[in-house]
Amino acid sequence: MIQSIAFVGGTHGNETSGIQLVKNWQKHGLPSRFDALNVSLHIANQAALEANVRFIEEDLNRQFTFERLSNDNTAKEAVLAKSLNEKFGPKGNSNTDFVIDIHNTTSEMGATLIILEADEFHVQLARFVKQQMPEANILVEDEKPYLEHGYLCTTGKKGAMIEVGGQPQGVLREDVYLLTQTMAEAILDFCVAYNNQKIETDALPACEAFRLGENVGFPLDENGARTAMIHHSLQDNDFKPLLPGSPMFRTFDGKDILWDGEKETYPHFINEAAYFKLDVAFATAQRITL
Amino acid sequence: MIQSIAFVGGTHGNETSGIQLVKNWQKHGLPSRFDALNVSLHIANQAALEANVRFIEEDLNRQFTFERLSNDNTAKEAVLAKSLNEKFGPKGNSNTDFVIDIHNTTSEMGATLIILEADEFHVQLARFVKQQMPEANILVEDEKPYLEHGYLCTTGKKGAMIEVGGQPQGVLREDVYLLTQTMAEAILDFCVAYNNQKIETDALPACEAFRLGENVGFPLDENGARTAMIHHSLQDNDFKPLLPGSPMFRTFDGKDILWDGEKETYPHFINEAAYFKLDVAFATAQRITL
Repeated sequence: MIQSIAFVGGTHGNETSGIQLVKNWQKHGLPSRFDALNVSLHIANQAALEANVRFIEEDLNRQFTFERLSNDNTAKEAVLAKSLNEKFGPKGNSNTDFVIDIHNTTSEMGATLIILEADEFHVQLARFVKQQMPEANILVEDEKPYLEHGYLCTTGKKGAMIEVGGQPQGVLREDVYLLTQTMAEAILDFCVAYNNQKIETDALPACEAFRLGENVGFPLDENGARTAMIHHSLQDNDFKPLLPGSPMFRTFDGKDILWDGEKETYPHFINEAAYFKLDVAFATAQRITL
Repeated sequence: MIQSIAFVGGTHGNETSGIQLVKNWQKHGLPSRFDALNVSLHIANQAALEANVRFIEEDLNRQFTFERLSNDNTAKEAVLAKSLNEKFGPKGNSNTDFVIDIHNTTSEMGATLIILEADEFHVQLARFVKQQMPEANILVEDEKPYLEHGYLCTTGKKGAMIEVGGQPQGVLREDVYLLTQTMAEAILDFCVAYNNQKIETDALPACEAFRLGENVGFPLDENGARTAMIHHSLQDNDFKPLLPGSPMFRTFDGKDILWDGEKETYPHFINEAAYFKLDVAFATAQRITL
């Protein structure tokens, strides 16, 4: 049973959709069909929200490893993470059955459900969400065990993220907001069905998903300055196949740099603003069936 | 004659198109057809660029009024403005014939040329740019005399801004970059023609332009919190007519708020991220012919 559910917005202070959804649900209440669920609503990083920045000192959504939660880092978000871990967790022995953390991206990723395990529960969740919301993307980041991730949502017994874009930081778009709300409600609908034992193994049709590969960096010169930008034929084409020999970058002196993988990949987080300083151009993925 | 031209990027440190264009021109040189022009290239706010923020303490592009340039404000951008005024100006008695300052917006404003006077020079400039680049928008902010504006470009004898979007802060999009480059080159082409006395009064066809009206704020509750978002039918429709009775906001409890002006207006800077803290939803404009 999924007894307790925590819905979190504002883990990144300039990602407005989750912040607004949490505030609106706090003000107007959740739809009544979720009355049987025990849902708590949270803004994770109020200081970052007020400053309209992703974080004040360090990325909050990288703080939730056992190592970081037990070290003596005094950065604002490191301290905040320890207190949130008390509230939602403690991680590994959690009081919360399911933590759902809501994010935005500047990439055209549409409504993406990010799961960190491809176990029975999360596969059924993904299939259910995809059935209710065929336009959703499912991203599987199971390259390491659930508890080794540093994400806030791993404070819960189960955790997942909603990632919706494209939306500039600090901007609230109606279309992106509505996608966020639709996916949030689909997840809660799943929890109701799951608790009512209406989700049976293999009753839901298998669905398309994408398994995270690796980050691809921008080309840099000897001084670390970028020499190219995302190619216009790749820009905004998140989760579309990038074929070997297709352009991925356009250099500033007008040449194309091609994807030289052995087979197609499914780029996402293409040109994400938050990865600006890391010079990450996009992440690769493999198309799978869940 | 337009003897000296200053091209400026990075007046806002997270508006990447102008920054990259200035860097690329510094590295690769300007197209040779501009050899007869004396063009200098500048990054205005290096500290803001490195921090990937609009500004460190205060908006640099509001510092260039006579009052602010002569006060004793010690904010980083106030100090920087005084030194830039020495370099490009001094305002009112300038050593630079034409200062062109390059900006980005998160709004879908395409390539917009902002002029601050509708005098002979700027009208011809606007007509020339529009002839070379029919997709360009011309925005006229002449609600007060040229020298009363606080914009960096007013340090020049003449000044104009290139404003291109939509592009999230801290992201470089190829399409937006190319629009920026095309408009920058069109302005330089105009300068060459002007210096060669090939621009004659009324030789260029009159063009469509938009005269700035006023800012429209988001609806707020008694605590100053927003109660609505930009309506999906207005979002991304910069410089398209908004007719009386058409929706402009969607409240979080699902109601539409309509434009109640007496006639149509031409919204722009719709949902601009930089105006987040000011709760500015968009600016109005009147359609005119230059």
